Amino acid sequence: MKTLILAGGSGTRLFPLSRTCYPKQFIPLIDSKSLFQKSVRRALLFSKPDEITIVTNEAHRFLVADQLEEMHVTCHILSEPQGKNTLPAITYGITSILKDDPDARVAILSSDQLITPDESYKAAFLAAEKLAEKYLVTFGITPDSPHTGYGYIRPGATLDGGFQVDAFVEKPDKETAESYLRDGYLWNAGMFLFSASLFMDECRKHAPEVAEAFSLTRDEAFRETPKISVDYGVMEKTDIAAVVPLSVPWSDVGNFDALYTAQPRSEDGNAVRGEHLGIESHDNLIISDRLVATIGINDLAIIDSPDALLICPRSESQRVGEIAALLKERGDERCDLHTTVHRPWGTYTVLQCGDTFQIKRITVMPGRRISLQLHHHRSEHWVVVKGTAMVANNGNEFFVRTGESTFVPAGTKHRLENPGLIPLEVIEVQNGEYVGEDDIVRFEDDFERE
Amino acid sequence: MKTLILAGGSGTRLFPLSRTCYPKQFIPLIDSKSLFQKSVRRALLFSKPDEITIVTNEAHRFLVADQLEEMHVTCHILSEPQGKNTLPAITYGITSILKDDPDARVAILSSDQLITPDESYKAAFLAAEKLAEKYLVTFGITPDSPHTGYGYIRPGATLDGGFQVDAFVEKPDKETAESYLRDGYLWNAGMFLFSASLFMDECRKHAPEVAEAFSLTRDEAFRETPKISVDYGVMEKTDIAAVVPLSVPWSDVGNFDALYTAQPRSEDGNAVRGEHLGIESHDNLIISDRLVATIGINDLAIIDSPDALLICPRSESQRVGEIAALLKERGDERCDLHTTVHRPWGTYTVLQCGDTFQIKRITVMPGRRISLQLHHHRSEHWVVVKGTAMVANNGNEFFVRTGESTFVPAGTKHRLENPGLIPLEVIEVQNGEYVGEDDIVRFEDDFERE
Repeated sequence: MKTLILAGGSGTRLFPLSRTCYPKQFIPLIDSKSLFQKSVRRALLFSKPDEITIVTNEAHRFLVADQLEEMHVTCHILSEPQGKNTLPAITYGITSILKDDPDARVAILSSDQLITPDESYKAAFLAAEKLAEKYLVTFGITPDSPHTGYGYIRPGATLDGGFQVDAFVEKPDKETAESYLRDGYLWNAGMFLFSASLFMDECRKHAPEVAEAFSLTRDEAFRETPKISVDYGVMEKTDIAAVVPLSVPWSDVGNFDALYTAQPRSEDGNAVRGEHLGIESHDNLIISDRLVATIGINDLAIIDSPDALLICPRSESQRVGEIAALLKERGDERCDLHTTVHRPWGTYTVLQCGDTFQIKRITVMPGRRISLQLHHHRSEHWVVVKGTAMVANNGNEFFVRTGESTFVPAGTKHRLENPGLIPLEVIEVQNGEYVGEDDIVRFEDDFERE
Repeated sequence: MKTLILAGGSGTRLFPLSRTCYPKQFIPLIDSKSLFQKSVRRALLFSKPDEITIVTNEAHRFLVADQLEEMHVTCHILSEPQGKNTLPAITYGITSILKDDPDARVAILSSDQLITPDESYKAAFLAAEKLAEKYLVTFGITPDSPHTGYGYIRPGATLDGGFQVDAFVEKPDKETAESYLRDGYLWNAGMFLFSASLFMDECRKHAPEVAEAFSLTRDEAFRETPKISVDYGVMEKTDIAAVVPLSVPWSDVGNFDALYTAQPRSEDGNAVRGEHLGIESHDNLIISDRLVATIGINDLAIIDSPDALLICPRSESQRVGEIAALLKERGDERCDLHTTVHRPWGTYTVLQCGDTFQIKRITVMPGRRISLQLHHHRSEHWVVVKGTAMVANNGNEFFVRTGESTFVPAGTKHRLENPGLIPLEVIEVQNGEYVGEDDIVRFEDDFERE
């Protein structure tokens, strides 16, 4: 079975953990693995690494590559030049898969949900695979509460291992949701299993402008195609939609309250990632790298990050997007970037910034290198604290090993490369009358940046 | 007039802003000046710098010196080898002043209160100076509320510019406090004005064990003297106590709620030091170097520091000491130390600590130098980012200027000195299999540390 993982989201509903450049699916939210990495693990239940295709935003392509590398798997990565919602993303992935395998069955997984797969999960996928010959199969989560934040699916006639879809229904109010629960409706979780060719047939029938666009080049396709969801464009219109129920712990982790529910909790009801010293404090979600001390604090989400701290009642978690929106409105780049910034070659973290100096911790991934560049206004000291660096400096090339340093004067062409097998860590101390990121002249770049 | 400033407190009721090694009086709480510096400013209204004596804890001697240097004033500093409450501190200061000036009048100021001096403040001190010939004068703050957290003074017979003290009374309950307010009682603020010789007479009479101790050497005196407050030891026992009313804005800033009251506030009632983005949030005290975003958060104290965050309802502020006490119980040094640590020669801040490396920002004050030392397990790269360093390295001495660096291999005797007139700032990158503070062999130290 092929798997297509949709990893194109860029939400900021978990600000300050999530930022536009580092969205929810890439954050190690629950443990050391990100939701994206967990979705790859689920994909590996049915597909070999080279049967897995990931569709992501161009800006996140290297994040995806790094997180795969961390898992020691190599998959196909397709990047979208612009986000056009799920139907174009799926169509892009499926047309790509079809080129090699006209008979492909494709599981479509979302990368921003938390699912704990068990035997019933596997059984549901096997049932769906059979149904996929004649149906476009969606998975329906058996609800454990009358949630008003999800769309529902009304099952119709019984099929072998599932049901025909009677209707997709919108997010209900509380009362309607309760009746849905009694009537056996399922949550629409945005997970599918398609025969690739059958899907394209239905796509051509119900969303021909999307199907046609993807006969063009990638960039043309994404320019031409409308913004449209797979539900609205195909699933709600086709006569051959089927649903396979899935009874597994599931969460879309759409806000901090959902994250609280998904976390293990201590006796006093606090879900803590980090260090908490609480006096008469219960039922809080606390995420921090520092000590968080609370006295008489209950039912709050306290979310800490190096440059921003969010505090709100858990019940107000759905409003966190308003904070990111306010920042965006002000042109504040903290809605986009963390203090740790991901680059194609690795990451950098600003440790301290003065008016005439800046200190960065730079991590270069094995085999990658920063562009050949020059700064007019600053010199740079590089001290290697882990790994071995290959440094180009004013035409010379030499190694700098752990505990050694080198100096790059202003106006000198230089490049930092990691020729080794483990990540290279360098402390960079910049000195100069101006230390802004835009004082850079790039000469050669492996990643074709200007 | 001489002034004696008591700066010996070491409380942690404002954790995480205050730590044992950096207590309340030295924090720039309200603006860029600390409460201690503000008390020096008040002292300068009546005394010349060399008429001011500061009594402080030995551990804080260099903090006092640095904060005076920042103000460009030089005063006498006396340090206590151990804290024995206010009577020994005052007796120590007064015996020292008496040696040069047997007729001294001495104003005793507390360094951990917030007072805005005005004309009435000056008038009260002049009145007290006259009364001091025959009385031990205490100042009584005219209360603006029936506070239950302070002791009160019941004024008796009228004197010229004040009253005889009828009684010192304990912290009252709410009802009693209200009756005190009606009856013209004053808050006991721990500020005094004494004739030095008259004070010693009364001390010999009512607390002879203290008076006698201070005829010995400093270390013997502090070993022999009992722990006792000036109120309990002398003021409540003497027949010649007088009180001069003081009608000025006054706060002991004893907890975060008091600090909130002392701060300017925005329209929505938030008192903010730092950057706050609030949605439907009011009446909070927020202190942070980072962005603090809140939604639907009211009446909280949110107090941020590089290694610890405190959150509690303002009304629970008096319990903050419990947090510091819990940390102390666990042997957690965060109750004592900030990430920025004050040393006799300046400060250092740990920017990042890995298992085999550590990055520090070191500030050396003009004219001072770190001890001549050696590390067995780590090498150090020093990059100067401000000022000029004089470096001793393996017997060689040389200058390292802004933007330059030098390398100190493990096992090499080295020393860092600031020969200049502005603070020297150095980024230190340590590398080694062990980077603990205790890997240090000291050979020579200007500050006589081992």
